Order: sequence, then structure tokens, then C-alpha cells
Amino acid sequence: MTLRNWGVKFMSATWGRNLKLTIFGESHGTCVGGVVDGLPPGMAFPADLIEFELQRRKPGGNLATKRKEDDSYEIISGLFEGKTTGAPLAVVFRNKDTRSDDYEEMRKKPRPSHADYVSMVKYNGFGDHRGGGRFSGRLTAFLVFAGALAKAVLSESRGIEIGSHLLKMGQVEDQPFETEISPGKLKTLRGMKMPFLKEGIEEKAAVHLEKIKKSQDSVGAIVETAAVGVPAGIGEPFFDSVESVLSSLLYSIPGVKGVDFGKGFGFADMKGSEANDSFFMNGKSIGTRTNNSGGINGGITNGMPIVFKTAFRPTPSIGKEQETIDMDSRQTARLSVVGRHDPCIAVRAIPAVEAALALALLDLQMEGEALNG
Amino acid sequence: MTLRNWGVKFMSATWGRNLKLTIFGESHGTCVGGVVDGLPPGMAFPADLIEFELQRRKPGGNLATKRKEDDSYEIISGLFEGKTTGAPLAVVFRNKDTRSDDYEEMRKKPRPSHADYVSMVKYNGFGDHRGGGRFSGRLTAFLVFAGALAKAVLSESRGIEIGSHLLKMGQVEDQPFETEISPGKLKTLRGMKMPFLKEGIEEKAAVHLEKIKKSQDSVGAIVETAAVGVPAGIGEPFFDSVESVLSSLLYSIPGVKGVDFGKGFGFADMKGSEANDSFFMNGKSIGTRTNNSGGINGGITNGMPIVFKTAFRPTPSIGKEQETIDMDSRQTARLSVVGRHDPCIAVRAIPAVEAALALALLDLQMEGEALNG
Amino acid sequence: MTLRNWGVKFMSATWGRNLKLTIFGESHGTCVGGVVDGLPPGMAFPADLIEFELQRRKPGGNLATKRKEDDSYEIISGLFEGKTTGAPLAVVFRNKDTRSDDYEEMRKKPRPSHADYVSMVKYNGFGDHRGGGRFSGRLTAFLVFAGALAKAVLSESRGIEIGSHLLKMGQVEDQPFETEISPGKLKTLRGMKMPFLKEGIEEKAAVHLEKIKKSQDSVGAIVETAAVGVPAGIGEPFFDSVESVLSSLLYSIPGVKGVDFGKGFGFADMKGSEANDSFFMNGKSIGTRTNNSGGINGGITNGMPIVFKTAFRPTPSIGKEQETIDMDSRQTARLSVVGRHDPCIAVRAIPAVEAALALALLDLQMEGEALNG
Amino acid sequence: MTLRNWGVKFMSATWGRNLKLTIFGESHGTCVGGVVDGLPPGMAFPADLIEFELQRRKPGGNLATKRKEDDSYEIISGLFEGKTTGAPLAVVFRNKDTRSDDYEEMRKKPRPSHADYVSMVKYNGFGDHRGGGRFSGRLTAFLVFAGALAKAVLSESRGIEIGSHLLKMGQVEDQPFETEISPGKLKTLRGMKMPFLKEGIEEKAAVHLEKIKKSQDSVGAIVETAAVGVPAGIGEPFFDSVESVLSSLLYSIPGVKGVDFGKGFGFADMKGSEANDSFFMNGKSIGTRTNNSGGINGGITNGMPIVFKTAFRPTPSIGKEQETIDMDSRQTARLSVVGRHDPCIAVRAIPAVEAALALALLDLQMEGEALNG
Repeated sequence: MTLRNWGVKFMSATWGRNLKLTIFGESHGTCVGGVVDGLPPGMAFPADLIEFELQRRKPGGNLATKRKEDDSYEIISGLFEGKTTGAPLAVVFRNKDTRSDDYEEMRKKPRPSHADYVSMVKYNGFGDHRGGGRFSGRLTAFLVFAGALAKAVLSESRGIEIGSHLLKMGQVEDQPFETEISPGKLKTLRGMKMPFLKEGIEEKAAVHLEKIKKSQDSVGAIVETAAVGVPAGIGEPFFDSVESVLSSLLYSIPGVKGVDFGKGFGFADMKGSEANDSFFMNGKSIGTRTNNSGGINGGITNGMPIVFKTAFRPTPSIGKEQETIDMDSRQTARLSVVGRHDPCIAVRAIPAVEAALALALLDLQMEGEALNG
Repeated sequence: MTLRNWGVKFMSATWGRNLKLTIFGESHGTCVGGVVDGLPPGMAFPADLIEFELQRRKPGGNLATKRKEDDSYEIISGLFEGKTTGAPLAVVFRNKDTRSDDYEEMRKKPRPSHADYVSMVKYNGFGDHRGGGRFSGRLTAFLVFAGALAKAVLSESRGIEIGSHLLKMGQVEDQPFETEISPGKLKTLRGMKMPFLKEGIEEKAAVHLEKIKKSQDSVGAIVETAAVGVPAGIGEPFFDSVESVLSSLLYSIPGVKGVDFGKGFGFADMKGSEANDSFFMNGKSIGTRTNNSGGINGGITNGMPIVFKTAFRPTPSIGKEQETIDMDSRQTARLSVVGRHDPCIAVRAIPAVEAALALALLDLQMEGEALNG
Repeated sequence: MTLRNWGVKFMSATWGRNLKLTIFGESHGTCVGGVVDGLPPGMAFPADLIEFELQRRKPGGNLATKRKEDDSYEIISGLFEGKTTGAPLAVVFRNKDTRSDDYEEMRKKPRPSHADYVSMVKYNGFGDHRGGGRFSGRLTAFLVFAGALAKAVLSESRGIEIGSHLLKMGQVEDQPFETEISPGKLKTLRGMKMPFLKEGIEEKAAVHLEKIKKSQDSVGAIVETAAVGVPAGIGEPFFDSVESVLSSLLYSIPGVKGVDFGKGFGFADMKGSEANDSFFMNGKSIGTRTNNSGGINGGITNGMPIVFKTAFRPTPSIGKEQETIDMDSRQTARLSVVGRHDPCIAVRAIPAVEAALALALLDLQMEGEALNG
Repeated sequence: MTLRNWGVKFMSATWGRNLKLTIFGESHGTCVGGVVDGLPPGMAFPADLIEFELQRRKPGGNLATKRKEDDSYEIISGLFEGKTTGAPLAVVFRNKDTRSDDYEEMRKKPRPSHADYVSMVKYNGFGDHRGGGRFSGRLTAFLVFAGALAKAVLSESRGIEIGSHLLKMGQVEDQPFETEISPGKLKTLRGMKMPFLKEGIEEKAAVHLEKIKKSQDSVGAIVETAAVGVPAGIGEPFFDSVESVLSSLLYSIPGVKGVDFGKGFGFADMKGSEANDSFFMNGKSIGTRTNNSGGINGGITNGMPIVFKTAFRPTPSIGKEQETIDMDSRQTARLSVVGRHDPCIAVRAIPAVEAALALALLDLQMEGEALNG
């Protein structure tokens, strides 16, 4: 056993302040799974919602990968007589339909823009490379599972609803959320395979994706997400702003390369007088006439809908031939990724994005709770 | 003493894994300051670099606010005979030129898109409202101070250099960084008052800002930042990716509403075959022909320059009259913010953005250390 | 779903700074297990040592409980081709020989000095009461597992050896460790079923325990533990002293009610001139003539053997009839605990105590590493 | 700047889960101080209680050191118009009466059993050695300050009272707390210079201490502490038991070498049938007839008084000549510590022990809050 690496940390699997997530597993190992710590005792287990959310991220449609990931799971701790016990809730998703042979080539030829190369460097070649190992999107099964628990709490006890649509996917563009967003609209979006706000572009998007898939290529996308019903006062300045906490979780989702809130990057050519959201009495409560801030001021929710965008890169694993390096010979090499990959990872990642929001809100809401009660 | 709020956390002042920052202070209170914990003993104190960085964020130019913030500081712990001791290093910036009277009006009339309202809600009216209290940009003095310490370590021991430019500010647009970025270029940018890559637009920008200032308005901006010399292998998947750690710190800087890496939001209409960065042998080391990934794959550095963009909203405090609410009468009210405010906060925030990067890298690099030695 | 409890944390399952443990499971649920995060990649998996340590804590001897806990385990993450990958290592011990019926009575009649009552209060009756649920000593299986990994690292790479003996168990008293402790002696103690330093008292102890068992009673004990080979410089003042970190982990072991270091409580009637450990040159290295400090000064190791004592209460579950309360009727009730319980939990807890030391040292040693090269 | 130490952490200055303490400062540097993060907004500042507690730890009586530590402090953040704001509360105690010359000898000749030697090793000689630097008992001024804030919350809102006595100090022995402890008794103890339960031994103790002081020696002690009014349900199994959280803080107090709860080490020769605390209806609430468990079962409070003991070593700095090593010549050297030192550190450390309890309870109580409301 060599310990040249002593003094180094390879530790990052736990996230959270008041709700702690610990993730484990590899794509083609025994399982993926994790531990949710901090749930109150006596909560009814929302099996149906979990099933619904897992279905949303499941591959298998004709537009997504042909892998059949088995998303059946086993709760191995923290549940008794159908209710949470207050102890850590642990869950395991066993891996089944794995074709590790597909990945032998990548062991020596790192896929461009994938984690293969950085994994070789960081873990000195000891990482489990099969199917992307722990860098695989399969690990988001746990995130979606935990997110469904958080959504159940937020929805049933607080009336908070979360939903998303594809704002942009290659050449297909949707319209952004309006200032007013209804809970019903968000529920409708959650039920759509490829959610758009504009009528009739779903088909156009399907055709676009099919074309990209046939050309053995992939495409990027922007997901826009909203939460309604969130009370004012959630979040903290320096260093736990809603933006800080949420983005730290979003950037754990494979493929995410950008996050912005409200007008976000659009603020760059706005003036203060255009950008500022004027307060007004909206019936008996305080609202703002516009929501350019995306529901957050000074890192803290202001009671308006939370609105943010998440940018996804195109799936790096593509069938088209690419240039890379053979790590043994250090010579230029050609690579065509076989395996089965989504042409646009953003589609299946939508429930993971929403899970991140639900988990971030629950984590922070626990802090903010007593304000209102 | 009422404890209806027991069970709630108002706690967020500490950040970091291997290097811990604890921030405190209010804009018009006694001071702002903080504690840096985790610096190794025997490090020479980089007083000149700290002075240089604090100058960069100082108000006082004709384009920035007319306040004279006194950025002189006192080290009150952790330094002995000019060197770090290994104990926590604490620093205090006393507040001097404060005109708290300017803020009496805001105590009842929250400024649109500012933290005034959320602070009232969250802290039940007990927060220090003067000058924005703990939501003030003045707190970034500590961030810039700590960032200078991190920059000194990164530069002297690792040759890592960091620099930024204004990619967009209202109608003024700069060109993005190229794939190759020289340390010298980054140093040059750090020396510029309003850094741009394109020749000759600094003047145009000054005119633009002056015009906005005269109209009692403000404007947003995008800052693009790069670091060169960062070795491959820094960062962790689930949940400490470079993007997660860095964005969590960036979103603590007042005014930040968007962060993306490499092509970021631009990935949305790119194909995988365009977006992927092919590996090649760059002399004896492995590089990529393009750097659309911004130097990060799977959350881990790949040895290419780290490149990211930070979007700033326009300063919410503007002289132009705005609509808000009188919190006592719950009636519509008009507000013209007097005080002295920057027309574009992004300009002075650049050293804070760079500080966030230096601190995030040092925090993560400590983890990655043994890889190379 | 009621959320009267929102704002409350039920979260405590993760421990550590540089090595993170996350524990889960219940005594009579699906399993007990946990996640070890922070192990370096490429470490050979020490299956034999793990087996040896698990055997030490296994019930089944005639002096211990008659339960047959199945300590076979499954690694479900973090191991690939026989070596650690640098990803979180997760392990599961399935529960098998459980007789939950034995515990129905305790659901209403809390066992005196056991966790039954506090669990009812804290978890509002939703906790899994069977077999003590998550308060059960069975959860130490994970601690012993993780401790074996830590021991392997400490022993193979650093020559650090850890061992323990029973300093006191009811009327049986052993002699304390001498100032000089050999690694071989510690190994010998690890091989003994009931480890004592004095010759010939093992039999006496067995007779004593048998007598207590027959009288349906139990007995307390003191375990004394030592580590040799620990370099000077490990630990931190305020707030991560070796004593702080180690005791926080020891007090997670069910039944522990006292911890002291070196002379510990014996210091109370010592003078400074007697208690102080004089420095001297021990060959080429610096040692102390006595080791009253137990190898720790100012919270930091000084290079002498670490020596500490752990006090265990008698097993609260005893066959002898006791007085308690029926939680429904609030009337006095009588209770004879049937089930199968150890007469002295300390005996089986010894490997858990040593695991705590190994884990605390590894957690802190990672911090202190670079000092020596 | 050498970075052989990169990859190492020297970071331990922050403690807590729901209430975070960050400590800084050195004994003979600019100041000692710290940051309390997590206090709710609107809490009246308990200036009198803080003054009272600081007086208790103040040196200057004829039995304690002749140093005049100036315990006047300045709040530099988190207080506005006499109330907490919800922002981090930072405090500074400037150092004044320091005689650093007294410590020049120790720079080369480490005091036996003091932190001088381990500090040299750990911090490579860069630590501030003067007056013990950050290892000095002077840092407990911040602990006592923060503890007073916690005591104010616990007492005013919950009726929780905390008090201590000297159970043993050299040859002077007191009687332990009885099962029933009145809040009034604890208040009385807090008002005594050398608190004992037995009548008339204070004088005997004073004579004993005077004798020890005259012989230029020091003596150890055991402090017994109790809290009454603590509700059942506070604390967590694995890994945040009351014992874990409290002991981790107690072991940060210089000189502490042992902690036990209830009968603690006395359990070693007790049987379960003697040790178990039977439940009974104490009026309308559930109590136990004895309190051998010290108010804690399974790591969680059971509603009985919390009772624990803290063992202190004799002050290592004594006037009597001792043997040490000259670090330059590596030769045996003689050392008589001049300076001004307490003959028994435990006396002045009592308010620090109580502060640790108050802070641990508040930190954990915040978690447990919603149980009762």
C-alpha cells in the first residue's frame, strides 16, 4: 500500500446544512445510491411521487438512450411501518443492464470533454472507468429520489410547486416564463415528456433531436425552472444565499455549465431603472410588478416565484469520429463512442434540476422556518 | 427575550473545506472583517499585493461612488514577526466615512431589488439597515483581502495567474478570451482601471458610464475571468466540483446573478461535435485544441485555462425616482436614493470575483496537492 | 403529513473532517451499514484484517449474547479490481437472526437507562424500536469495519499499532499500561478474547462474568487503550484537539459514559511537579521520562504513546425484574428483559474503541501529514 | 514562500452545528476574540451576565495569578441598538498587561507537559510562543463570553440553570451532587469564589492552595457540573450525542484531561441492577428514582439533571525547577518557570466548563426545539 497520497482529500460525497445528502455508487458497479439525513420522523413515504419522478429521468424513449436502466430501488434504512423514523434514510438502486465491454476502449482513449481524462489523473488510474463510473448521469437517480422526498414536503405542507421547460435546445426556442406563474402550469409541465411553454413546438423539437441522433451527434440546451409559493425570508447573505446553495447543487449534475437567476446574463445591457422590480401591494401581500430578480434579493427569497436557468452542454459521448490521445503510446488516436447515449442530456436531467431546487429550498427553509410560525 | 425563533438558524458566515473563511461586520457599524483559517505557518505576509488588490476595489474615481471608504486594515491575530503562524488570521477594517442619515428613509421604504425588504422580513426588523448593513458590497473588502493571500500562494508557489476583463457593460462589448491565454496578459488586465481585451474601448466605456451616471441610473455587466497554470486533477464530482465550489462563493458577491463556465449558455445551440475539445499532445503535455469546457470536465480541472463569466445586475440604488411601498402605511410611495453609489458595481467587483476564484482553487488545491508530489 | 417539526434537525449521521463516515441502519431493519468517504485511490482492500476485527466484536461466545449476528457484509461502492477507487466506499451488513417479538413489551415499557424512553420522546413514537433500532450496539459493526480500514493504513504505512485491555471489570482489576509499550504487546492483546495485562486473571474474570450472567445481571468496565508509533504534531488547539476529536467519536459507542487521557481523573490529587513529564533525549529523538499526559499536550500528540481510558456502564438490558412505567396507562410496571444480552458490553466493544482511535488519528493525521515530508 | 506544507490543514477554529463559534487570537498578540454565528435577531444583549461571568474567570485574587488580564471587550459586529441583528456577532478582547520577556527562555526550552514542544513541531517554529500563544487559557475569555450569551437564552426562555463545584482539589474532597438539584443551589454556587457543596471546606481549600503556591507547585482538580430544567429529547445518536458534542468542546479548554457523565468511571464496579435508573411518575411528569445516567440515555437527554465531571491536570507552568531539553543544543537543561501562574487552573476554568455546557445545549437544543412547540 503506497501512501504518497496521504495528506490529500478525496472526499466530497456529502452535501447540505440541515438536510444532508451522502451519495455513493458507480454506473457499472454494484449500485448507485445514497443517504438522506435530516428528514423529520413520521413523514408518510411518497412512493408514487418518487416513481413518477424516476420515470421522468428514465432512459428508453426513442429519443433518449436505448439503455434500460432499472430504476427499481430498495430502502435499506430509516423507514418503519411506512413512515420515516427520523433516522438516516438510505436507498440503493442495483445496476443491471450494463455493458461494460463498450467502455474498454475509453480506458486508454479518453473521450473529448468527458471526465475520462481528469479521472485518470486524479485517481491515478484506480477509478472505476466503466460507464463513466461515478461521473455517470446514473448517479442522479439518487438526486431525483431525494428530490421527490423534498418535493412532497414542500408541496403538501407549504403548497410550493416546482416545474421546468426547455427554453432552448439547439435551434428550437421556447418563450420564457411570464411574471405570473400558476401552480397548475408547473404541474402540466412536469407531466410532459419534452416540456415547452409554446404550443406545438414539441413535435418540431422531436424532429430536430431525431436528426441530431441520426447524424451521431448531440446538442446542448437551456432549462428554465420556477418555484411558486415560496415565502419571503429564505436564504442567507455571506455565504448561504439561495443562489449559492442552489448552484452548488446544480453544478453536481453532469453536463451543467451555466446557471443564472431572473434576467441573469440579460442584466448586462439593462439599466437599473429597467431592471429594478418595483414593490406594490398585491392585495394584502407585498409583491413586485416585474420579477427580473427571479424571486431573490440579497440572496434571500422575496416571495415572488423563484426563476432560474440551467445551461447544459451537448452530451460529450457521440458516435461521430473524434480526435483524442492513446494514453499508452501518447499518439493521436481516433475514437467513435459506441455505447448508447442521449442526444440531449438536458431532457432527462430536468427532474434532477428540479430535485436540486427542492432540496436546496428544504435545506434552507428549515433554517428559515420559525419566521412564519 | 422572545424565542419564537428558536429552532431557526441564522448562520451562514463560514465558508470552505480546507481553508475556512468567517466573515462579519456591517457597512455602517464598527467595522467589516473576517477570519481566514487554514493558512500554513511560515508564509510571508503579502502586504503589497493586498494593498494593490484593495486599491482595485476602492471607490473614489470619478466613475465610481464618491464615498471614501477607508480600506486600511488591522491584522489582529495569526501573524507574528511578519509571517503566518498557522493560527487563524483575523482582520478588521474599521468604518469611518459613513453617512447613516442617508439611509433613514430606506428604513421604511425598501429600495426596489435591494435587500432592504427581505432583511426586514428575515430579521424581523432587527437587522442593521444602515448602508445596507451586512448586505453591503463593503463586506467584499474581506473577500478581496483573503483572495490576495490566496493569489500570493497560487502565484508564488504554483505560477498560477488570474485576471479578468469586462466582456459586456451595457452597450459596450469586448471580445472573449482566446484559447491561449498568457500570464502576462492577465497581469496587464489586473493593472487596468476598466479592463478590456479590445484596444481602445476603455474610453468609449468611460463615456457610456458617465452618461448613465448623469441620468441617475446604473447598468449591468458581464465579467470574464481566467486562471492559467492550474494543474489537472483539482475538484471533485458530487458534490465539490470546481463549478460548485466556485459558484457558491461567487454568488456571495452582491449583485451577481449569473455564472457560466467555458461556452456556458452558448452550448445551447452547439452540437457535441462542435463543442467537444479534442485532446492532443501539446509538446510533452496533454492539451485540448479548443477550450469550450473552460478548463473543467466532470467538475475537475483538465490543465487548460479555467474560464468563466459572471453576470452582474445594475446597481439597484439609483437616483431616478422609483415606486415602492411605505412599510408602515402599506401605501405606494416614491423613492429617490440619495447616497453615493456606483453606476456599475461590476467594475469594482472584479477583484472580488478573482478573489473567489483564488480562494476556491486554494481550498480545492489543498485537497489535490499530493497528486503532484 | 404534519410539519410541526419543520425547522428541527434530526441529522447527525455524518462524522469527520478529512475522512467522513456516514452511518445508517437499524438493529432489526434491513441492515446496518455506512459510507467511508475520503480514502485515497489504489489502497488494497484489507479483507483479512476486517474479518479479524469483526470477529472480535461478534457475539456468540458463552460469555456474550447468544444472538448470532451475521457479520457478513457487502461492499456496494468504491472498490474496483480489489482496490479503492477514491470514490465513497459503501458497505451493508444485512440483518438476519432477529427476534423482534422480544421487543414488543418495550414498545410500551421503556427499559430503565436504555434509549427506549428518549427515543419515544424525540421521534414522537415513529422510531424503529425493535432491538434498540438505531441505538443498538449492532451499528458499531460499521464503525469496526471502517476502523479496520484505518488501522490498515496506520499500521502498513506508518507502523502505528493500537491495542487495549480491560483495566477494570466489576471486581476484577488489571494493572495500567507502563510508560513503555511495545507494538508486539498490543498485537498480543488484540488476539485475546478478554485482554488483560496481568497474567492469569482472564480465568478469574470469566468466572466473575458467568456469575453475573447467572444472576441475570450485568456489570460495567473500564477499557484502557494505547497507540504507539504516532508522530508528534497531530491534532489542533481550539477546536480539534486529539481529545476532542477522539472523545466525540467514542461517545457514539453505546454504553460509553467516561473518557480520560493519561492520568485523567487521577490528576486531581497530583501536584504539577509530580504530573509533569520531563523531556529527555531518548537516543536521537525527544521523549518524556513519564507519560502522565497520555501522549498529548495542548491537544496535540507529542510522540509518546497515546493512552486513554473508556468507561462503560453495565448493559441496561437485564433479566432481573425492574421498575418502569407503562407509557399508555402511566402506571408503574414491572419489566424483565428477555432477549439475549451481553453481561458486559465493554468486552465486545473493545474493537469499536480501537476503531474510534484509528479513525480519529487518520482523520487528523491527514491534516498533519505534510509536516514530516 | 515554501509550500512543502500544501495539502495540509491547519484549520480547526470553527465549532458547532446550529450555533457556530470561530475563535482567534493569541495570549500576547493584539487580542483574543471570536465570532458567534447563529444567534436569533432581536435578543437583548446580556451585558451584566457577561460581566459577571468574565469576573469569575478573571485572575487577580491572592490565590490565582497576579497577572491583571484586562477583560474589557468590544463588540465589533452583530449588535444594533442594543439587540442582536441576526448577523454574526464578533468580539475582541485587546491584550494589555503582557510581559513577553518572561517567555524568551521557553522559546528554546519547552516547558514539561505544556504545549511549547508540540507547537514547535506542528508549526515549524512559526507559532507565536509568547504567553503560550493560542494555547493560552486566555482564549477561554471568548468561550466564557459566548457561554454567557447561551446561558442568558437558556435561563430566560427555558428556565435552564447551570452550576458547578469543585469535587476534588488535591487533598480537599467535596460531596457529589444529590439526585435532586435546585436551580437556587446552582445560582449560589455560581456566586462563590471557590464553590463547594459541603459547608466550611472553602477555607481549608484556600489554605491548601496557598501552601501549594508557596512551594512553587500546582495541583489538579475535578469540577462537577449540573444543568437543571433541560427537557427530554435533546441530542442525537451517531454522531451528535450530548456527550459527544459537550466533550468535544470541553476538551478545547486548556488543562482538561478527563470527562465523564453520571457515575462515569464509577460504573466499572456497578451491576446493571444497581446502575439502572428506574422510571416513575414524578407528579405528572416522568422521572427516574436515581440519576446514575447523569440525565442522558442513548446520547439524548431524559429530562433529569445533566451531571458530568471534568478532570483538570495541575498547571504545568511551575516555579519548581524541572528537567527539559535545550532545543538548539539538544542537551538536558533546567527550567524554572517565572511568569505568574495559577496554582490550580480548574478554579478559574469553572465558568469555561459551564460555558461549554450552555453552548452545547443551545447548539443541540436548536435542533430539538420544535419537539415542544
